[in-house]
Amino acid sequence: MSKGLTEDTANEIVRFRDERNWKQFHTPKDLALSLCLEAAELLEVFQWSGTDLRCEEKKDRIKEELADVVHYCVLIADVCDIDLDSASREKLQRNREKYPVDKAYGVSKKYSEL
Amino acid sequence: MSKGLTEDTANEIVRFRDERNWKQFHTPKDLALSLCLEAAELLEVFQWSGTDLRCEEKKDRIKEELADVVHYCVLIADVCDIDLDSASREKLQRNREKYPVDKAYGVSKKYSEL
Amino acid sequence: MSKGLTEDTANEIVRFRDERNWKQFHTPKDLALSLCLEAAELLEVFQWSGTDLRCEEKKDRIKEELADVVHYCVLIADVCDIDLDSASREKLQRNREKYPVDKAYGVSKKYSEL
Amino acid sequence: MSKGLTEDTANEIVRFRDERNWKQFHTPKDLALSLCLEAAELLEVFQWSGTDLRCEEKKDRIKEELADVVHYCVLIADVCDIDLDSASREKLQRNREKYPVDKAYGVSKKYSEL
Repeated sequence: MSKGLTEDTANEIVRFRDERNWKQFHTPKDLALSLCLEAAELLEVFQWSGTDLRCEEKKDRIKEELADVVHYCVLIADVCDIDLDSASREKLQRNREKYPVDKAYGVSKKYSEL
Repeated sequence: MSKGLTEDTANEIVRFRDERNWKQFHTPKDLALSLCLEAAELLEVFQWSGTDLRCEEKKDRIKEELADVVHYCVLIADVCDIDLDSASREKLQRNREKYPVDKAYGVSKKYSEL
Repeated sequence: MSKGLTEDTANEIVRFRDERNWKQFHTPKDLALSLCLEAAELLEVFQWSGTDLRCEEKKDRIKEELADVVHYCVLIADVCDIDLDSASREKLQRNREKYPVDKAYGVSKKYSEL
Repeated sequence: MSKGLTEDTANEIVRFRDERNWKQFHTPKDLALSLCLEAAELLEVFQWSGTDLRCEEKKDRIKEELADVVHYCVLIADVCDIDLDSASREKLQRNREKYPVDKAYGVSKKYSEL
């Protein structure tokens, strides 16, 4: 199973936008707003559900909403000239410093409370 | 510039979680909630800014917050056994049907209003 | 205990804005965006907590974040000339029709699935 | 025009819940999550719109979504035993300290940057 996102798929997402001449609407602000709306739609899947809800019951919806979130991540990265992979690696590095294994092991606190 | 997310980086994200023994906290509901919070932090970059804000002015913050969103996308995909790349391609296909080029070209309406 | 919001307090919220000459920034879009950010801050209180978290443990933060949400509700109502009380009563009426007691009693489904 | 929310209306909102026996679902966490979803629905009204969108064009939708947000504010205040009016007044007081008129006049910065 692939965990990442291939260059091919990312390029398809950008092409989908360009074939429709939509870049003109894609201010970073509206893309960030749209990403937030899609994240809320994903969250809606879990409204009134116990925390023990397993993914299986709602897998199709989760998959679709998650794809919408990824879609906007790629579009934001594109208009802002951000390399998604490097950005992720850099942030991971910062997170490793904020959450050192010996302090964060098995603890769900924010770094500021560790 | 890479637009996608390599398998390597996605695997690093999962390993970051496992080294800290955090999977126990990662119910799909709480991951979706966390994704929503990170999307809001990205949106905050644009609070009170004109729509004409260009990315350059805030690129470091955008990069960091976007990476946080991607981070949770990978974690949700992992706990829900979702193949992020296939999910994205399937959704693109559905979007192509909802937004046919001839109807959607240069129009920023929802498919239900096209 | 007061459940509502007095005219006096609502007027104070508007005055707070006017004393700082902030109305110029308050486009409906940015106010809605800000409301969303405040709602996310309230939600953050519950990140990684069980659904059984009682309010007592986090009451001060909940109180403060909830007040921020109410603050923006009043400001949006003000710039959009919306009577918050009438709007609420009208929506309640619509909700009574969408969720008739006999169908909705003890059921946490969306009206579209009742 | 009323800017506040009467006790009567707030009580109606609570009664709407009780007539449907819904309090059993209303954990603070799920209410906060629901508030966030409603705030996102309000924000959706402004997706792809210029910042210069005036309320008139979308007033009915804004009114309805805003009422949904207020609805959940009242329900959270109820289950958490929060006096919405006092909470708002206390937060205003804190905001007056964080944003003194002489520093904040005509400036849209966060207090931490003033």
